[in-house]
Amino acid sequence: MNTPKDMIRNLTTVRGIKCWGAHVGIKSMRRDLAIIYSEVPASAACVFTQNEVIAEPIKLSKKHMEDNMAQVILCNAGNANACTGEQGYQGALAMAEAAAAEVGIPKEMVIVASTGLIGEPFPTEDIVNGVKENMGKVSSDAKAGSFAANAILTTDTFAKEGFMDFEVDGKTVYMAGISKGSGMIHPNMATMLGFIVCDLAIEPALLDKALKDCVRTSFNMITVDGDTSTNDMVAVLCNGMAGNEKITSEDDPGYKVFRNKLEEMMIHLAKLIISDGEGASKFVEYQVNGAPSDEIARRLVRVISDSTLVKAAMFGRDPNWGRIVCAAGNAGVPFDYSTVDLYIGDAEQVIQVLDKGKPASFDRNQVKRLLRESHLQIRMDMNVGDGQGVGWGADLTTDYVMFNSVYTT
Amino acid sequence: MNTPKDMIRNLTTVRGIKCWGAHVGIKSMRRDLAIIYSEVPASAACVFTQNEVIAEPIKLSKKHMEDNMAQVILCNAGNANACTGEQGYQGALAMAEAAAAEVGIPKEMVIVASTGLIGEPFPTEDIVNGVKENMGKVSSDAKAGSFAANAILTTDTFAKEGFMDFEVDGKTVYMAGISKGSGMIHPNMATMLGFIVCDLAIEPALLDKALKDCVRTSFNMITVDGDTSTNDMVAVLCNGMAGNEKITSEDDPGYKVFRNKLEEMMIHLAKLIISDGEGASKFVEYQVNGAPSDEIARRLVRVISDSTLVKAAMFGRDPNWGRIVCAAGNAGVPFDYSTVDLYIGDAEQVIQVLDKGKPASFDRNQVKRLLRESHLQIRMDMNVGDGQGVGWGADLTTDYVMFNSVYTT
Repeated sequence: MNTPKDMIRNLTTVRGIKCWGAHVGIKSMRRDLAIIYSEVPASAACVFTQNEVIAEPIKLSKKHMEDNMAQVILCNAGNANACTGEQGYQGALAMAEAAAAEVGIPKEMVIVASTGLIGEPFPTEDIVNGVKENMGKVSSDAKAGSFAANAILTTDTFAKEGFMDFEVDGKTVYMAGISKGSGMIHPNMATMLGFIVCDLAIEPALLDKALKDCVRTSFNMITVDGDTSTNDMVAVLCNGMAGNEKITSEDDPGYKVFRNKLEEMMIHLAKLIISDGEGASKFVEYQVNGAPSDEIARRLVRVISDSTLVKAAMFGRDPNWGRIVCAAGNAGVPFDYSTVDLYIGDAEQVIQVLDKGKPASFDRNQVKRLLRESHLQIRMDMNVGDGQGVGWGADLTTDYVMFNSVYTT
Repeated sequence: MNTPKDMIRNLTTVRGIKCWGAHVGIKSMRRDLAIIYSEVPASAACVFTQNEVIAEPIKLSKKHMEDNMAQVILCNAGNANACTGEQGYQGALAMAEAAAAEVGIPKEMVIVASTGLIGEPFPTEDIVNGVKENMGKVSSDAKAGSFAANAILTTDTFAKEGFMDFEVDGKTVYMAGISKGSGMIHPNMATMLGFIVCDLAIEPALLDKALKDCVRTSFNMITVDGDTSTNDMVAVLCNGMAGNEKITSEDDPGYKVFRNKLEEMMIHLAKLIISDGEGASKFVEYQVNGAPSDEIARRLVRVISDSTLVKAAMFGRDPNWGRIVCAAGNAGVPFDYSTVDLYIGDAEQVIQVLDKGKPASFDRNQVKRLLRESHLQIRMDMNVGDGQGVGWGADLTTDYVMFNSVYTT
């Protein structure tokens, strides 16, 4: 009666993971409560928003993550539970307690997240009732994974999912993830969420290290409008059900395999967020190579990809290398443009526009033609070291400005 | 820059298939135009609604399918283009012509479909402009497949997808599909759509035969409220890019493999539709075995699963076998209940409630407990022949009645 296992591969493909996505009444006629449940206690790690204003569920989840163990991720959409004070905090707590009671685990094993409108009173009763009614429905059926992937969405126009398998210690390990993005046209609902589950056996502290390591090159390398939300969260559970010998050291060859696969998954989920800006018309990959360090390269990528002038040029199909160099000069790191090579192109080919700081002879119309494509790349080689960074962003469109100029916050 | 190929498997995983899903302005802030494009002309087959009132895109697509060849499936959501008369027909035609012109193929190679509100004027200009703007964006990137899966939805709460691979003639063949359902709470938007792509090489006439064969045991065996919509359509494209020797006879062993895989995919996509009734609380599988013929078994399944009394009993957790037997007696086929065994249960176990027409001794409370589950099964054995049928339905809930009693049509 269930969905054939191989037809859809998602969260519930991972051993011991059950999901549900319910409509509990926050959003009209849409699923708005996602439940991700591991049959056994899992090593867990989270990274949270860097915004100074922190949503109530984040405050609670930080406490619950002190031991880096969890068994449930609970996320509602439609109400961010941010700037809601004590009422909101008690609501987040009630949500975690209700889930924990239903499955008979300590409330500290529940991670809670919210996304939606900021500053609205938290509809605690609806959500707690929804949790009670739906915790028992968690299922390992693939469609239940789809329900969960859809239940975390707000203005997103498609469900963002990923799945992979790999070998560790002779065992096949499954990893799956979901994310929600942006909604460029609603920046105050622009929560970034990423939830990843895996059946690898790994020490909590090592999982925490891997997540923090990978977030630098994935979720931290996408920019929509440079803002972090009050509710941003990436959480990962590893429940050990793949049956590998538990990874307890960074020197374990399995650690590196896992870390790289986790990074691949997180980059995938982060890029899907950039692909989902209705106000945006282009997906742009930014690369900086030959920098003094990876950190400096990533810093340059972030500053360039977040420059309104660069983003507007991408929209306007303007091969304006001056703006890119200008943005780089504002990044707060030493930057000598006289050594810099710069390339602009589409997904397939790039054309050099700057050669050691001097304009390369290029066919301006050819570059303009490339810039018509919906996938672009900007590549900068600083020629001073081995540092590398890559990140992703959207263009800045007239639609974006139009929508945001009339949206009442 | 693209989505790692193995992370998401969907329409675009199939060789030669490119997709896109765009927002062209019919639905507020949602993708509402899906494009499925095959790089090469494909064998194609469609089944259309049995409703006497036929939407304009269906009329056009029937003409375009006379040669069972196609290269594009175009579907808009938000406007059904039904009961729109000549204005609507010209709109459907303009949509097909615009797509054909953009990719340089005859308009007869385009299948068009629509879903949404019935009787609204068709927004031809918006859609034609959207087609012109987006045909060139079709991509083999996996996220483009997700865009398409989401762009055909109306009141659906999750995107419905499936993927599989199998061997024919020593070649690996890929098949993927998407569907959209029901929206039980909006019966006049309850279009059922299924779009399937496959890279098998097969004669058009054989593909047509396989589709018509499989629809009897899949899309025709689900019921939400017994109505067919003006816009129902299932379409399948096989573009031959798997490289197998073309299947030209039913006796080719590859034909049977393909036919069975197609059936599996169509059952999967049909069942996902049943899983997505917000007004519904239960998914019920109905089986009839031991019938005089498969056809009679399927007829009984359809009548039982569509009985409001049976559906209400499923909602009310009432092990009321009398209603099931009563519905069977109304099916217009010979039915002698004195030979009938009947079983009621959840996804895992069934309990016999009728033994050769006589009430079996069963624990009523145990059955009531089973009926709490969200997945139920009803199994009837007629003990008179070898005919078998299976189908799927939802329960009839107070929510369903409430929503539909206030929805202005």
